[in-house]
Amino acid sequence: MIELYHAGLSTCSKKVRLCLKEKGIDYVSHYVDTSRFEHHHPDYLALNPNGLVPTLVHNGVVVIESSIINEYIEDAFPETPLRPADPGKRAHMRLWSRFSDEAATLSYAFTLASGNGFANALRGLDEAELEARLEQFPLPERRAAVAKALLEGGASDAELESSRARAVAIVTQAEQDLAKAPYLAGDDYSLADVNMIAHIERFRDRILPGRFTPQTYPRTFEWFGRIMDRPKVKEAFANSAETRPTPPTSVSA
Amino acid sequence: MIELYHAGLSTCSKKVRLCLKEKGIDYVSHYVDTSRFEHHHPDYLALNPNGLVPTLVHNGVVVIESSIINEYIEDAFPETPLRPADPGKRAHMRLWSRFSDEAATLSYAFTLASGNGFANALRGLDEAELEARLEQFPLPERRAAVAKALLEGGASDAELESSRARAVAIVTQAEQDLAKAPYLAGDDYSLADVNMIAHIERFRDRILPGRFTPQTYPRTFEWFGRIMDRPKVKEAFANSAETRPTPPTSVSA
Repeated sequence: MIELYHAGLSTCSKKVRLCLKEKGIDYVSHYVDTSRFEHHHPDYLALNPNGLVPTLVHNGVVVIESSIINEYIEDAFPETPLRPADPGKRAHMRLWSRFSDEAATLSYAFTLASGNGFANALRGLDEAELEARLEQFPLPERRAAVAKALLEGGASDAELESSRARAVAIVTQAEQDLAKAPYLAGDDYSLADVNMIAHIERFRDRILPGRFTPQTYPRTFEWFGRIMDRPKVKEAFANSAETRPTPPTSVSA
Repeated sequence: MIELYHAGLSTCSKKVRLCLKEKGIDYVSHYVDTSRFEHHHPDYLALNPNGLVPTLVHNGVVVIESSIINEYIEDAFPETPLRPADPGKRAHMRLWSRFSDEAATLSYAFTLASGNGFANALRGLDEAELEARLEQFPLPERRAAVAKALLEGGASDAELESSRARAVAIVTQAEQDLAKAPYLAGDDYSLADVNMIAHIERFRDRILPGRFTPQTYPRTFEWFGRIMDRPKVKEAFANSAETRPTPPTSVSA
């Protein structure tokens, strides 16, 4: 039995939910409501000491970190492979998994600034409550980013611009790769695409608004539309029972 | 034919040289002399646009990023496996590969402060030459770290302490894992150990001097001694023809 603890439409939760759906794997969905600080609850921290979503539990094996979870899913369920068989292309896929990890890190300040449910819940606290919540962050870099967003007026323009420059570098790499093949890691749809699509959507909407267009990055924009049109991407990225606070739900592929 | 472009005894070069030696794979060694800025030479940047070492070239396939290179070596040369067969243990191994990537990032400021060959070469330049060299850094975060080290007196105490705290968190994780099994990812020596050993040595010598001892982290210290005693680790970590500026050398396993 597979159980997925996730935060619905957060980018890293989308990555893993999409991987499971593309491979046709049924799972029990546990929505972790970060606006109610459920990711810092001791029961959840026992599974994921970093207090991050998602976490996969498969027959008692606990796996954390979305890129590592998706490799685990490939290792445990080799049917409908999403990793290229060729070692060189597989290495290139892993370079894209790493870009997706970097994208998650660089977009965090933007997410906090735009006010996701978690940030808004923190903004509703008085100073003592906020201090107590900040104490509960297991990862000091997350705690520092949240403290900066809520107590010091957010990331500086220089920091945001440096993150935007990295996002531009990633999209530029996509543009180069897509000149050679229809998918990021070659001729086949792979974890490179699965891991990046939610982040490119985030780049378009929040990090590079107006700068990621059919004119600026034509190949990546075409790829983006093509991937977003896939039935399983539509399903994973839609508002649904699975992406709202609910009791655990069985999700059939 | 395998060719490895590396900087000898840099931590990430050690990771890949050790992996090749443990698997008994012959390779042609190309020493990239960073003190002569060879990693920023256009010929090298054509292989590795990030201007980082190491880079592996195998029958025309170019692979960058040391953790990704070591996974590539496993994919291309499955004999003498250094990845656990069990998917859960393999995921845990990948968590350690990620810690090794994080260790490389957090230790860079300490390396620059201690004055490696590259930093010393930069310190020997006049202001105009230094500015020109800084312009050549492909990765803005590396350029910023070097500029800070050379022009602004180095990383702040707060930044160094935050890096030390992450190093402590990594060693604490090792201590927990080694309570359960003799190696970082379980019962067998794996890429978890191969990827971490040079970084733990760096922690001992530069990042946590006096804080990583048999008293503070007994299991990790015992593991450290045990891994450092392996013949291939001694060979990979020793000063040798391969780790000094020389013409390409054939290295037999």
